[in-house]
Amino acid sequence: MELEFLGTGAGVPSKSRNVSSVALKMLDERNEVWLFDVGEATQHQILKTAIRPRKITKIFISHLHGDHIFGLPGLLSSRSNQGGDTPLEIYGPVGIRDFVETSLNVTGSRPNYHIKYIELKNGGEIFNDKTFKVEAGLLKHRVTCFGYRVTEKPRVGELQVDKLKKYNIPNGPIFGQLKSGDTVTLDDGTVLNGKDFIGPDKPSKVVTVISDTRYTPEIDRLSKDADVIVHESTFSNSEKKMAYNYFHSTATQAAEAANKASAKGLLLTHISARYTGKNALTLQKEAQKIFKNTKVVNDFDIYEVPFTEKRG
Amino acid sequence: MELEFLGTGAGVPSKSRNVSSVALKMLDERNEVWLFDVGEATQHQILKTAIRPRKITKIFISHLHGDHIFGLPGLLSSRSNQGGDTPLEIYGPVGIRDFVETSLNVTGSRPNYHIKYIELKNGGEIFNDKTFKVEAGLLKHRVTCFGYRVTEKPRVGELQVDKLKKYNIPNGPIFGQLKSGDTVTLDDGTVLNGKDFIGPDKPSKVVTVISDTRYTPEIDRLSKDADVIVHESTFSNSEKKMAYNYFHSTATQAAEAANKASAKGLLLTHISARYTGKNALTLQKEAQKIFKNTKVVNDFDIYEVPFTEKRG
Ligand SMILES: [Zn+2]
Ligand SMILES: [Zn+2]
Repeated sequence: MELEFLGTGAGVPSKSRNVSSVALKMLDERNEVWLFDVGEATQHQILKTAIRPRKITKIFISHLHGDHIFGLPGLLSSRSNQGGDTPLEIYGPVGIRDFVETSLNVTGSRPNYHIKYIELKNGGEIFNDKTFKVEAGLLKHRVTCFGYRVTEKPRVGELQVDKLKKYNIPNGPIFGQLKSGDTVTLDDGTVLNGKDFIGPDKPSKVVTVISDTRYTPEIDRLSKDADVIVHESTFSNSEKKMAYNYFHSTATQAAEAANKASAKGLLLTHISARYTGKNALTLQKEAQKIFKNTKVVNDFDIYEVPFTEKRG
Repeated sequence: MELEFLGTGAGVPSKSRNVSSVALKMLDERNEVWLFDVGEATQHQILKTAIRPRKITKIFISHLHGDHIFGLPGLLSSRSNQGGDTPLEIYGPVGIRDFVETSLNVTGSRPNYHIKYIELKNGGEIFNDKTFKVEAGLLKHRVTCFGYRVTEKPRVGELQVDKLKKYNIPNGPIFGQLKSGDTVTLDDGTVLNGKDFIGPDKPSKVVTVISDTRYTPEIDRLSKDADVIVHESTFSNSEKKMAYNYFHSTATQAAEAANKASAKGLLLTHISARYTGKNALTLQKEAQKIFKNTKVVNDFDIYEVPFTEKRG
């Protein structure tokens, strides 16, 4: 599981940061890529990465401000032009369907795949299958805005082959049966219960994405024990008042949330253009005083989950 | 008057060519910039130029395909965020208003300026003031598509100061009166008619922009005697059949139109991604056999009007 940042700036695109989008790459886990927000030119950013648009199966929109959604119609059209034909789901506030459908209909050409819209009014569980679940939570922005928490389900541990050595089990189906947790009778009459030979559950991961918002307790709920929190950090603590008035967060507030949540890592994004170049590091330093494992991200940064070091 | 190309590719953005947009810079003439089509990430391209969004006063949309309009909502929003507060006019096929208004309304924040929509059903004169007029003409694409012809009005010639020398006119208001074409009586009783001392009209310029289309006679009408024709050239002559089926033009067809129109120059744009890198020059060579003064343009190319050499 990796996070690849496609746009890390606030409000309007600049030469160094595009508007919001981050990809959660789950190629090993699901052979899928999920996007969180799709600012204008997200498809242009994707052109510069290894992400293939047809692998994008779910898009989670935080809120309906232009810098978070104006790239959607183009991305959806190009996904179709580039051979994408599998269904796609779009989660987001009420109104997202209207915006996308109007944009696609005006062009007179529908994508070659089905788009399912899941319009959210409140938080709660919005997706749940064998391997993952996703919860949404209402944040506190000028308009309806959701944060998202992606939870990988516990994965069954490995078969402990070492412990089985003494039974001289021949290569073949018995290993598979034990791995599935079945009970097996060997040729010599020995009865083995697969469950006794399966190691502990593999650690599952939690990724939380907190878009434009003031502090609200919902952030704590969404972030609890997350492996990594992607948190907006439009301002520094010295602009605390402005952050509050514009319904945004400071680096300090993001770090406090990560701390309270006992998260493993914090990635700061949605950086205001006032923090150009190295200035963005002041936000990182500010946050690190409270929560050490913090990074300010840049466009095209790739982070592995659980939070380790930058790869991109 | 200059043309600056912001996007010169067909259909979907590629690493080397963005989707359609070209700026007609009339800074000396009007202190304005006009845009023809606004594909996604046009505002991102503008960031890399000297164009200031607030100088954009008119936008002419050829047709409602995504690669020609998906950059509009973002550009209009950013123009406002960056202090643009003067009115803006958008010309284009019926439906353009709905697309833009839905996009702007969903974000819950209106630009700080008035947008006037001029939705076109047929061709004809669509703008006319003291110094310029614009005509639209129906092209032949899969959907309603307009070409545009921008005509600068004749500009009154210079006062021929040399011819006035012998009258020993004192510095002062008399020169201004003569320049305005008035009749003036000098102190010695000599009567001078200003019109006799004004040189020939300065050459005025014609720029024609032909977007996605098959050949249609309307192209000839819009292009007649143009200083420069910007013409789509999605395909080469060897893909003539495909061009026809997809309602597009070949480089040869663009050159034939320029030739028939006695135009001074031809700029080929809307280049298919199949002609990558140097391959695009095959389109130029193909056209030059028929119309010598042809160039295939690239993103960020700047051409002066009347057509001289590339500056960007
Ligand atoms: Zn934002
Ligand atoms: Zn096109």
